Amino acid sequence: MPREIHLVNRPEGVPQPSDFALVRAPDPDPGEGDVVVANLWMSVDPYMRGRMRDAQSYAAPWQLNHVCDGRAVGRVLDSRHPGFAPGDLVRSLFGWREIFAAPGDALEKLDAAYPHAQHYLSALGGTGLTAYIGLLDLCDPQAGETVFVSGAAGAVGSVAGQIARIRGCRVVGSAGSDAKVALLGEEFGFDAGFNYKRDDPMDALADLAPDGVDVYFDNVGGRHLEAALDHMNDFGRICACGSISRYNDAEPAPGPANIFQVVPKRLQMRGFIVTDHLDRLPQFEADVKGWIASGDLRVEETVVDGLESAVEAFLGLFRGENTGKMLVRLASG
Amino acid sequence: MPREIHLVNRPEGVPQPSDFALVRAPDPDPGEGDVVVANLWMSVDPYMRGRMRDAQSYAAPWQLNHVCDGRAVGRVLDSRHPGFAPGDLVRSLFGWREIFAAPGDALEKLDAAYPHAQHYLSALGGTGLTAYIGLLDLCDPQAGETVFVSGAAGAVGSVAGQIARIRGCRVVGSAGSDAKVALLGEEFGFDAGFNYKRDDPMDALADLAPDGVDVYFDNVGGRHLEAALDHMNDFGRICACGSISRYNDAEPAPGPANIFQVVPKRLQMRGFIVTDHLDRLPQFEADVKGWIASGDLRVEETVVDGLESAVEAFLGLFRGENTGKMLVRLASG
Repeated sequence: MPREIHLVNRPEGVPQPSDFALVRAPDPDPGEGDVVVANLWMSVDPYMRGRMRDAQSYAAPWQLNHVCDGRAVGRVLDSRHPGFAPGDLVRSLFGWREIFAAPGDALEKLDAAYPHAQHYLSALGGTGLTAYIGLLDLCDPQAGETVFVSGAAGAVGSVAGQIARIRGCRVVGSAGSDAKVALLGEEFGFDAGFNYKRDDPMDALADLAPDGVDVYFDNVGGRHLEAALDHMNDFGRICACGSISRYNDAEPAPGPANIFQVVPKRLQMRGFIVTDHLDRLPQFEADVKGWIASGDLRVEETVVDGLESAVEAFLGLFRGENTGKMLVRLASG
Repeated sequence: MPREIHLVNRPEGVPQPSDFALVRAPDPDPGEGDVVVANLWMSVDPYMRGRMRDAQSYAAPWQLNHVCDGRAVGRVLDSRHPGFAPGDLVRSLFGWREIFAAPGDALEKLDAAYPHAQHYLSALGGTGLTAYIGLLDLCDPQAGETVFVSGAAGAVGSVAGQIARIRGCRVVGSAGSDAKVALLGEEFGFDAGFNYKRDDPMDALADLAPDGVDVYFDNVGGRHLEAALDHMNDFGRICACGSISRYNDAEPAPGPANIFQVVPKRLQMRGFIVTDHLDRLPQFEADVKGWIASGDLRVEETVVDGLESAVEAFLGLFRGENTGKMLVRLASG
């Protein structure tokens, strides 16, 4: 019998392994129009912290004592749908499980010839699209402008910063360890970086962005947002993508005391959810595949093996244990 | 000799009358190309609090022991410029003084036939244009949407709320006294209002905007912004116009603890300075004159007389002593 992971408790504050359970699922029982899929890869993402809460938001809450869900890439084992055949590579929202049956209409067929299936969950997946939309569509960075990316060694930040570099911007990033900061320069081609666990972002930006910040891609919120507001240039653009520093707060922390800077500096701050922008997928995929092929975009991934490691992989996101995209490999091939 | 007002001290916190001095100025001594103007009306505005600080911002700091400046409407007394003749009505940045000489190129000739010259400093002036740009250009409210305006009985808020009503929106406003709240409904045609000195904006919006807020026109900041963020609908737009609750703070107050709402709700928050939008003046003036003529837009003004009253009029803005635009009448005609 295949295995799957259930949510069994809604935590306050930092989630624990005991909030989840690894359980046996029944063997798939496909009906007409269904496809049976063996997952190869599944995604764990910070936004899933919100799905542990029993509150309506853009993503529905996970149900207690039911299987979790999220994006996954798998291989078709069996098909009762004319659009799919065994061996097809598909992307679905049926993560956190090893094998499943689902209507073919809920699956997205991928290019099986592409050599890195897991990229469809990283640079070619939701986090890559998030970086692409947030940076290009919301902030429209121009060559020569300074772009600041927080959480820059993460799944979204590493792609956002590299796209900014490809656009001809000067790129400054923050990350949570010296090793990650080194990666920003050596691997991703950022112009400057700092370790926000050692240096206050306010001071670091004064040093590293002496001409100010034109675009801020915010993955972190909190003190990072406050520092960015103080260093933004007139007519700067902020894309509010995430706020990982806050996701586990039981009580809200004070917001940026300098939020009023948006007025004299004529700033624009926009929040977005990537699933509103799926019409951009074809152009996004063409651009990103081109940048990967040319070597302009490096795809960084942290891989753990086995569904039994998925919970620790997810919890590790909040301890900064990933560089690039955190992925769980469920099977080979 | 005419009189003018000088800044003589830069205060911390709430400004005092002693920060200003009323002094005699030399009689104007016009050169070639200059125009001599007797001011009829001058504007006092909250943004001028920022000009009392010795810090670069979008408006230059007032210089210590020099005459203050700001928008004024006056009548030409004498002209050495071919574009102006005695009797012309002009708008300038030479407020806080009774009579001045200035290059004609620094003056804007107004329609002398328009019967309410002071409107060129209120609904047809900077505050009216601020309301027009912030509401229409930045937030694009649609008929049937709910628009929340804070400081709604003020110069900007009263116009913004009325334009929203003209656009077919449901309009909720906050003001600082029961009398002002009554005015919102009776004079300006708002659908609902509350006294923020008695009712917490968070509770008031829950009552008065049960279907949420689509557009928030922020004149106040602070708790108002926090309440709006909690009540915004998905894809809501916030125009950040001012933050009068904060202008006299010596130390910054905490920002909105719920700023992260911009992400799941896909909010857009934009700050703006009206002088970036002067290309919109012709359409603005045509629209507003039309709305005034049809009776759709009521122009509310609080008038004090004499340059010797200007400082108290300015300080009164921070005590909420105005309804609509605070104006100082310097002369009749």
